[in-house]
Amino acid sequence: MTSKPILETKSLVGKGKYVGKFLRRVEGMEKVMGKAKYVADLKMDGMLYVKPVLACHAHAVVRAIDTSKAERLPGVVRVVTAADIPGQNELGEVVHDYPMLVAVGDKVRFDGDMVALVVANTAEAAQRGVENVDVKYEVLQPVLTIDEALKDQIHVHEPSNVRYFHKVRKGDVEKGFAQSDYVFEDTFEVGYQEHAYLEPQGMIAIPDIDGGITIYGSMQCPYYVQSAVARVLGFDLSRVKVVQTETGGAFGGKEDVPSYIAAPAALCAYLTGKPVKFVLSREEDLRMTSKRHPVRVWLRVGVKEDGTLMAVEAKVWGDMGAHGTLSPIVLWRSNVHAAGSYRVNNVKVDVWGVYTNKVPTGAFRGFGSPQVFFAFESMMDEIAGHLGIDRLAFRRKNALSPGESTVTGQILDESTGALETLQQAEGMSNWDDLLKKVEEFNRKDPLKKKGVGIAHIHYGVSLGAMGNPLDASGAFVQVYKDGRVGIHVGGTEMGQGMKTAMAAIAAETLGQKIEMIKVYQPDTSYVPDSGPTVASRTTLFSGNAVRMACESLRERMVKAFAAFMGVKPSLVEVSDGRFRCPVGEMSFEEAAAMCDKDNVPLSETGWFASPKLSWDPEKGFGDAYLTYAFATQIVVVEVDMITGAVKVEKVFTSHDVGRAINRDAVIGQIQGGFVQGMGYALMEFVQYDESGRMLTENFNTYVIPTIHETPKFEISLVEKPFKLGPYGAKGIGEPSLIPTPAAVANAVSHAIGKRVKRLPMTPEYILSLMVRDEGEVV
Amino acid sequence: MTSKPILETKSLVGKGKYVGKFLRRVEGMEKVMGKAKYVADLKMDGMLYVKPVLACHAHAVVRAIDTSKAERLPGVVRVVTAADIPGQNELGEVVHDYPMLVAVGDKVRFDGDMVALVVANTAEAAQRGVENVDVKYEVLQPVLTIDEALKDQIHVHEPSNVRYFHKVRKGDVEKGFAQSDYVFEDTFEVGYQEHAYLEPQGMIAIPDIDGGITIYGSMQCPYYVQSAVARVLGFDLSRVKVVQTETGGAFGGKEDVPSYIAAPAALCAYLTGKPVKFVLSREEDLRMTSKRHPVRVWLRVGVKEDGTLMAVEAKVWGDMGAHGTLSPIVLWRSNVHAAGSYRVNNVKVDVWGVYTNKVPTGAFRGFGSPQVFFAFESMMDEIAGHLGIDRLAFRRKNALSPGESTVTGQILDESTGALETLQQAEGMSNWDDLLKKVEEFNRKDPLKKKGVGIAHIHYGVSLGAMGNPLDASGAFVQVYKDGRVGIHVGGTEMGQGMKTAMAAIAAETLGQKIEMIKVYQPDTSYVPDSGPTVASRTTLFSGNAVRMACESLRERMVKAFAAFMGVKPSLVEVSDGRFRCPVGEMSFEEAAAMCDKDNVPLSETGWFASPKLSWDPEKGFGDAYLTYAFATQIVVVEVDMITGAVKVEKVFTSHDVGRAINRDAVIGQIQGGFVQGMGYALMEFVQYDESGRMLTENFNTYVIPTIHETPKFEISLVEKPFKLGPYGAKGIGEPSLIPTPAAVANAVSHAIGKRVKRLPMTPEYILSLMVRDEGEVV
Repeated sequence: MTSKPILETKSLVGKGKYVGKFLRRVEGMEKVMGKAKYVADLKMDGMLYVKPVLACHAHAVVRAIDTSKAERLPGVVRVVTAADIPGQNELGEVVHDYPMLVAVGDKVRFDGDMVALVVANTAEAAQRGVENVDVKYEVLQPVLTIDEALKDQIHVHEPSNVRYFHKVRKGDVEKGFAQSDYVFEDTFEVGYQEHAYLEPQGMIAIPDIDGGITIYGSMQCPYYVQSAVARVLGFDLSRVKVVQTETGGAFGGKEDVPSYIAAPAALCAYLTGKPVKFVLSREEDLRMTSKRHPVRVWLRVGVKEDGTLMAVEAKVWGDMGAHGTLSPIVLWRSNVHAAGSYRVNNVKVDVWGVYTNKVPTGAFRGFGSPQVFFAFESMMDEIAGHLGIDRLAFRRKNALSPGESTVTGQILDESTGALETLQQAEGMSNWDDLLKKVEEFNRKDPLKKKGVGIAHIHYGVSLGAMGNPLDASGAFVQVYKDGRVGIHVGGTEMGQGMKTAMAAIAAETLGQKIEMIKVYQPDTSYVPDSGPTVASRTTLFSGNAVRMACESLRERMVKAFAAFMGVKPSLVEVSDGRFRCPVGEMSFEEAAAMCDKDNVPLSETGWFASPKLSWDPEKGFGDAYLTYAFATQIVVVEVDMITGAVKVEKVFTSHDVGRAINRDAVIGQIQGGFVQGMGYALMEFVQYDESGRMLTENFNTYVIPTIHETPKFEISLVEKPFKLGPYGAKGIGEPSLIPTPAAVANAVSHAIGKRVKRLPMTPEYILSLMVRDEGEVV
Repeated sequence: MTSKPILETKSLVGKGKYVGKFLRRVEGMEKVMGKAKYVADLKMDGMLYVKPVLACHAHAVVRAIDTSKAERLPGVVRVVTAADIPGQNELGEVVHDYPMLVAVGDKVRFDGDMVALVVANTAEAAQRGVENVDVKYEVLQPVLTIDEALKDQIHVHEPSNVRYFHKVRKGDVEKGFAQSDYVFEDTFEVGYQEHAYLEPQGMIAIPDIDGGITIYGSMQCPYYVQSAVARVLGFDLSRVKVVQTETGGAFGGKEDVPSYIAAPAALCAYLTGKPVKFVLSREEDLRMTSKRHPVRVWLRVGVKEDGTLMAVEAKVWGDMGAHGTLSPIVLWRSNVHAAGSYRVNNVKVDVWGVYTNKVPTGAFRGFGSPQVFFAFESMMDEIAGHLGIDRLAFRRKNALSPGESTVTGQILDESTGALETLQQAEGMSNWDDLLKKVEEFNRKDPLKKKGVGIAHIHYGVSLGAMGNPLDASGAFVQVYKDGRVGIHVGGTEMGQGMKTAMAAIAAETLGQKIEMIKVYQPDTSYVPDSGPTVASRTTLFSGNAVRMACESLRERMVKAFAAFMGVKPSLVEVSDGRFRCPVGEMSFEEAAAMCDKDNVPLSETGWFASPKLSWDPEKGFGDAYLTYAFATQIVVVEVDMITGAVKVEKVFTSHDVGRAINRDAVIGQIQGGFVQGMGYALMEFVQYDESGRMLTENFNTYVIPTIHETPKFEISLVEKPFKLGPYGAKGIGEPSLIPTPAAVANAVSHAIGKRVKRLPMTPEYILSLMVRDEGEVV
């Protein structure tokens, strides 16, 4: 694996002392030395362990729970059921349809629903307790597919399985089709994806000395956890403190799910008065926790002969599984992105969520957009082929520029780098040559076929109009009297590099050296509700909050230094850990000590809130997100025509990021996002049996890519600073993955000469496409 | 015990919803229910225990330390000596003369110096280890009295035993004496006082998951602890977090001393990688930890025939014991207060600290002032007696008014209530009648004699000119989206009522109900260095910081509410948990939720810094403290002329507090301060043997007053708001104790007809005065 970043806006590089440079990860040493502590590593005095009694049916009524046998077992402290909950028996933050524990008389809706919790002195004793809780079920017929759900004969939830309708309406789509020379129509389907974070879900709840409760654990969104624990215990928020421990990957899988682990742990801690640890095994984690939505997309696209896009119509059905969790907002993002990333005046999108008796689906890197881009970008290739236009030229023709309007009618800002990403990808790949070389290869080799795929996407950075009331973040920054700087933010580090980005922004803004900056583990008690760490928003939101707090602190220190030196503050320059003015200088440490002696306050809060967005849900039109990141990805694959196996050989990928804060982390995100998207496209496959029991319960059956499948990368960054971003940054966490399933699918379709319409493209599926071609039975 | 508060400034009472009322202690319920957790109650997983090897000589050179036998004992993990310290072997925050562990070749300077630390699995095993550490000493002659120290033949520290000279120079004292009709001269002596807090010193140090260290413990000054731990470990401040646990009394005894417990605990935690608990036994605590300074005061006072004070000269020697600790600033306060609380134009004060081979002396409620007021107010009575002037009238004649100048030349502000306290005390006690009644009683009873004593004092609130660079405090306030309010301050709760005062100020300022306010345990990571919780400064400093943060938050919420209601912010009123305006209202909770949805930032920092004071140490003249609290106390005692036993029967005490925040807490402070001062005056007596070993190592030999010795109180408050105080408050913690030793001594002198010149007034001492009177051998 190599990376050769090509940097477009060269003038920006090296401008900052830290921002834009290749920075070493601030928490990296602890991690590589094995010193970083994850929740499973932590042990408290008198700590108890909890294990869940999971439903063993996909759809059933709980008729009785007998805990007596389990409670007599050695080591078992208590068995907890719904009757023990002092607050609300409700896990859902957005949709209130998810009981924490299924009560007697209520329904189990998937085979990962929790019926009881066993608290014991050891995890092993708790597990023995689980095996001895006797639950009587009345088994019901499960709803296992979108089609069954849409029939609405058996209801997962009342009154209907179909929920959360979203729409886009722009122009007049029928008129658009009438004006088109060609109209294309097709249906695409994508399956589940598991986040496959290295560290399973885990939480410790500790009763506080002052009557509150403190939660430690692996998570993306401490404020969601705080809210869930308060809700279930009937506490007010000031009695619940949440501290994120070192988190071993998340990818959206630790957005809402940690609340579902923390609330049971907190309940058991509350009931026993002891610290309680609840860590999922890999099997429990795969079975219980949310996945990427399986989606069906129907598309109808009208074009002129010359390739001008005239109209797009889309219908999207997302499989929400047994509980709504975050589906309304995930599917709203599908809604905004379903009609693609191009200039088109007539758009109609309809999106529905449907309940089934399977694992809930929710947040996952890309958040409902990779599925619809797979469909739309496949359609773009298909159309280009029919029109006989080069696929890249077709995209360039329709790509968006600053000042133009997105598919939802939002006017794009000056940071829009769509065209530049197409140009960069074209340049890096030597597009025309590449196509020729592949053609030549394919002519020579009868058993292996290469293919080139391309995808072009945009992604709304921020929570957007649906999440506007949550879209603000805070920071709390202290300069210590020894010159060290401590930073608390509401955003979390989950491996993506948040801490390093915050340290870089603070160092740049304060003029202190980056090694003097300490970014603490997120803790709800330092920073007000800063929303979730999702939507590629953390560099932008937390970064701005840090920048703002640091600007105030720097101003105060400059004023004190200027007064000491007897010069105007405007003559003071601070950088690289030194305060300088024409008549003298001192170190940042000396300036901090001086401010301390002068009683200059050296702590400050920062707060960045999204401007109000103008989206109108009734009209399905307006400004959907704060800003957009664009990307173009070109992928080269080789398909074994005998086995159907696909190897991704090379990736050329160009990303419009506004501004890279830590260039190294941006490249890491792009590489990691690609590999995760490639796994989704090619091999990752959640399977159920006919009764609704998950078959793929560990990594021996659920297969993910490894270093061996990782291709060679060429990466370029388009840096057109976003005016509201800290130092111009937008976001990269998700745009890194979003184009990949489409690009890989287009490459495979190009290689085999057949249109891929379903993910994952398992060898079986690829072979089946070729068999169908010869008129045989599938 | 009854209290009948007489409230002078009636107009102020009831003006606020909370401020000035009788408030229930916010943390009271947890304490009376036994739910509050003190450091000794806390246990961490894998926690180790440390016990100190104390020097068994007052003055000696350590020649060898053999730890091998101790280290072989079961349960002993490690024996730690000076050689294991990675940072500086220095405990002193102000004076750097206090090694944490005495190294081989270095000197032990009192019998509580630590030579080694034994870390073990249990406290018992650690104690067995202590008994098996073999230390070889070369014993030196100890210095045990001020007189021996002043000879300077044996040095406790090089180059001399005499240190930290302070002075006051105002006018021309020789000219003042020349203009006087009478000049009086006398010498007074006071002994040690032990703080006798209910909870002994204790700390837990925990290695953090991110390479830092967290300290939990009983303390007044978390920032001192942070600094000491960082110094000893060689850490930067951002790696040391200090959290105060519930603290069972302090009285100055937990100002610097907790650093001396935390640093060893932190060192052991650092070396073993485990949580370490270090809690002193009562014996260790009495032997190792600082006491009130024994002081000798020589006074010369010149007066006119009519009672006008013309000149005051004072020489003060304070016994600092073996280490300087906070002596320079304690003795500076003695310096400022030694010439009394009256109008006098010619003042000369000289103060010296001397080292002896005894327990270090340091901070104690009153901080070097009760000793000098005992001397000065005794002298005032003596002079009044000689001049034949009523003692109260004599004081009233010389008392200070706003606009007049203190003994150090500071012009008093409008909050000066000196005269009012004299008037109130006179009125409450029916002074003239009281004297007549006592005279009558004494005529009738030959074996019991009653006496009436009076004392009038002032006290500089704040750290003053010597502590100006530390004299600022911060607050961090969050309004949660459910309307609860969380408050962090840098000041600590040690039983004095800080939390309730902060909650009252926040509730009053925000307009929220007090039961919705939560004041958290102090934690260095939330608030920048806020100085120590001493000098009766916390209501003033932390209170102002809370008020300022709450004012900003209220303004933002009012603005949001006004915008929602479509009215001007000036039309909005907030109180009692409701926002109201002419067109509508909502609860504070609803307003907080609305602000959350609107992304209005609801966290804020507050910072209050003392104005710079103009004290000139070279000239011994200037503004010494931010403001002054005054008090007058009248005490009635009965002395058993056969046994010398003294019973305090009644107290009339009037205190100038600026403004009472929580009236109940102010009264509690006055009662508690009196009892502690009375113990100091009558019975508390630290004794040493001739080799320098402390004899009074527990409460069977060191006797303190109980509820049975507590007299009846009549209390009045003088409330003349201080313009820089939150709602006008000054401070009460120390002024409550300061007049008492003098007032009790004057009452005893009045009863027995002999001048008391030494504290404590043990029965033996009182009998000795009477024996002396009859010309017999003492």
